[in-house]
Amino acid sequence: MSQYRLEVRVKPRPGLLDPQGKAIHHSLNSLGWEGVSDIRVGKAIYVDMEADSPDAALEAAEAMCRKLLANPVTEDFEVSMVGELEGAGS
Amino acid sequence: MSQYRLEVRVKPRPGLLDPQGKAIHHSLNSLGWEGVSDIRVGKAIYVDMEADSPDAALEAAEAMCRKLLANPVTEDFEVSMVGELEGAGS
Repeated sequence: MSQYRLEVRVKPRPGLLDPQGKAIHHSLNSLGWEGVSDIRVGKAIYVDMEADSPDAALEAAEAMCRKLLANPVTEDFEVSMVGELEGAGS
Repeated sequence: MSQYRLEVRVKPRPGLLDPQGKAIHHSLNSLGWEGVSDIRVGKAIYVDMEADSPDAALEAAEAMCRKLLANPVTEDFEVSMVGELEGAGS
């Protein structure tokens, strides 16, 4: 078993309203960044967990997304491996 | 000028309390994921913007983080390029 850190990105689906993104977009335009054309705000969730292998950790994180971390109706998610934290034995 | 999409990840600094992460951690343990040892919740912000070059877009996004997107006292941020969306002329 090793410790892994994974990054989960949860993002509002294209086409759905994102009021927080709209507010940030407006603020950035007001601050002078006029080249900004769209902002979408999602969550970045960092998961530290024990697993037998990197693949097992990624699979577990995807299951967590389907069950708890993301709303399947309104959000998409992506999971990626950040790295191994420490080997707990061999 | 080209259109670029950037991803900004804003994350609570290590050591600072993250009540949302704690709540998710507890829920995951209750759902049977006992190997999870820590959860930190941040924001993933997708910025679509026009810029002269990828480097100019990255620099602008870092300036946005310092000025608006991240709280420098409590949060760290990372900016990365997702890709070019379309070339608007040459």
